[in-house]
Amino acid sequence: MALLLKTEAGRGDSWRRALLAADPGLDLRQWPEVGDPADIEYALVWFPPKGALKSYPNLKVIFSIGAGVDHLASDPELPKGVPIVRMVEPGLTAGMTEFVLMSVLYHHRFMLDYAEQRRNKVWREIDQVPPWDRRVGIMGLGVLGGDVAEKLVALSFDVAGWSRSPKDLPGVARFHGPGGFIPFLNRSDILVCLLPLTAETTGILDARAFAALPEGAALVSVGRGPHVVEADLLAALETGWLGAATLDVFQTEPLPPESPFWDHPRVVLTPHVASLTIAKTASEFVIDNIRRHQAGRPLLHAVDPDRGY
Amino acid sequence: MALLLKTEAGRGDSWRRALLAADPGLDLRQWPEVGDPADIEYALVWFPPKGALKSYPNLKVIFSIGAGVDHLASDPELPKGVPIVRMVEPGLTAGMTEFVLMSVLYHHRFMLDYAEQRRNKVWREIDQVPPWDRRVGIMGLGVLGGDVAEKLVALSFDVAGWSRSPKDLPGVARFHGPGGFIPFLNRSDILVCLLPLTAETTGILDARAFAALPEGAALVSVGRGPHVVEADLLAALETGWLGAATLDVFQTEPLPPESPFWDHPRVVLTPHVASLTIAKTASEFVIDNIRRHQAGRPLLHAVDPDRGY
Repeated sequence: MALLLKTEAGRGDSWRRALLAADPGLDLRQWPEVGDPADIEYALVWFPPKGALKSYPNLKVIFSIGAGVDHLASDPELPKGVPIVRMVEPGLTAGMTEFVLMSVLYHHRFMLDYAEQRRNKVWREIDQVPPWDRRVGIMGLGVLGGDVAEKLVALSFDVAGWSRSPKDLPGVARFHGPGGFIPFLNRSDILVCLLPLTAETTGILDARAFAALPEGAALVSVGRGPHVVEADLLAALETGWLGAATLDVFQTEPLPPESPFWDHPRVVLTPHVASLTIAKTASEFVIDNIRRHQAGRPLLHAVDPDRGY
Repeated sequence: MALLLKTEAGRGDSWRRALLAADPGLDLRQWPEVGDPADIEYALVWFPPKGALKSYPNLKVIFSIGAGVDHLASDPELPKGVPIVRMVEPGLTAGMTEFVLMSVLYHHRFMLDYAEQRRNKVWREIDQVPPWDRRVGIMGLGVLGGDVAEKLVALSFDVAGWSRSPKDLPGVARFHGPGGFIPFLNRSDILVCLLPLTAETTGILDARAFAALPEGAALVSVGRGPHVVEADLLAALETGWLGAATLDVFQTEPLPPESPFWDHPRVVLTPHVASLTIAKTASEFVIDNIRRHQAGRPLLHAVDPDRGY
C-alpha cells in the first residue's frame, strides 16, 4: 500500500518528515510524483485538483488535511463510496480554541475601543462587564466548538451553542435546528461561527441573522468564508448594529486588495490562520487511522455522507 | 459601627448601592461626609489622601478597593497596628485572568505581526507554535497569578511561575527567590508580571532582566508601573531583543502624551484596566469579612506586614 500526499505549496517537506517519523516504513508518494496509480490506497490531501482523485483505482480512504472537507465535497468527480476522514488532531483543536478565546476576550474587553482611544492618546476606563453577564453563542458544537465552549464556561462566560442536532455540553445552553436559530442569536452578545460548510450553512450569516443579534454584538468568523454574506456583514457594521468583528475567512481568499475589510476600523482581520493542522500530531492521527482501517476496525472521524461533515 | 467609603472619583454611588444591597442595615459614611470620626470602625478605600486614615480613633480594619495595597503602604502616617485587607473577589480575579489570557494568546498568535501585514494588505500565514512549545512565565503566584497559571495549563501551555516563597501548583514549573529569577527568565518566551509592588519588586524588570529572556520574548505588564524600568524596556524593544509588550500600567498614570509607548508599533497599550474590582461581588466580600471580624474570627486575605502584601 502507498499513501498519496498532496499539501498546500511549500508544506510538502514538513509533512513528509512528520509522516515518516510516525511510520518509518511508509510508502509515501508526494504529488505529482505518484508512480503507479494502482499502488495508492490512501490519500492525505488539501485542495486536490478537481477530478484528480478518480485516477486511483484502489483508493480506500481520503484524509483531509484540514478540519473542513468542503474542499473535497465540492469536487463533482470525487470517487463515489470512498470514505472521507476529517482532520481531528490536538494541535488543530488547540489552535482553534486559542484563536476563538483570544477573539472573544478581545471584544469582551473592548480592545477595539481602547485602540481607538489610544490613537487619540485618550486614557479612559470603559466600564467592564463581568463574564457571567456576557452571552457568547457558538454555532457548531463539534470537536472544535465543544472545546471552545468548555474553555469559555471555565472562564465563567454565559455560553450557548447552536447545532444541527441536540447536543449536551455541561454549562452550555443548547439550541438546535432551524427553530432554535433566532432565539439563539437573540442572546448572543458575541457570536462565534465554527460550522462546517454545507449547502445548508452557506450564507447562513445574512442580514436576517445579524438583525436578530443584540445591538452592538460582535462576530467571530472562523468557519468558512461562504457562511457569511459579506455585503450584509458590511452593512451591519456600517450602521453600528454589529459593533465589531474578527474575520479570519472570506468569500475570496487571499482577500482581494479592494476589499473594504482590509482597513475597516471595527474589524480584526487575519489571513485564514485561526487554526493550522500541526504535521507532527496530525501524522500520528493519520497513521493510526490507516492501521485501524487495515485491521478492519472503524475509521475515526469519518464523514457522514448525508450530513456532509 | 460605621464603614467609611472612599472610592475613585465617579464610582461612589455604585459602591454605595452595592454595599447597601449586601447589608441593608449598614451605617455607610461616604468620604468626605464622615460625621463623627469616632464612629468609623472600618474603612474601604482607594488612594485615601496621605494621613487621612489617622483621623479615626476607633478604626479597626482597612479594606483596599484594589488587589494591590501599595496605595496604603506608601502613606507614612498610616495608623500602626490596624490590619489591612487586600481585595480578593471573583470579579477582580476573573477580569485579570481574562486580560492576561487574551494578552498571552495575542502574542502567542503573532497578532502584532498580522496587524502589520494587514496595514500592507499582505495575506501571509506565519508558522504557528503549538502551545506545549510556548513557555509562559508568571511572576507572582497569589490569587491572581495562580488562577492565570491554571487556565494557561488547561490550554496546554508550558507554564512556569516565580514567587517569593515556594508554591505548589499542578502542572506549573516552580522557581522562587532571587536564586530562581534568572533561570526562570531564561525559559519565559512570554513573561507576565503580576507581582505586588514592594520595595523588593520595584524596578525588578530592568535591563538585566530583559537580557535574561529568550530573544524575541514578549512582556505582559499588569502589576504596577514601577515594576518596570521604562527606559530599559524601551531600549529592549528598540533592539528587538524584546519582541512585543502589552502594557497596562506605567510609572506615571495617566500616561503623559509625550510617552513613546503611545504609538510604539510593538506595544499593546491599555489605561490600567486589566482588572477592575466589581462593586457587587466586592461588597459581598467586604461585608462578609466585617462580620467575621465582629464575630472574632480571623480576617480573610489580611496583609502580612512583614511581606507588605
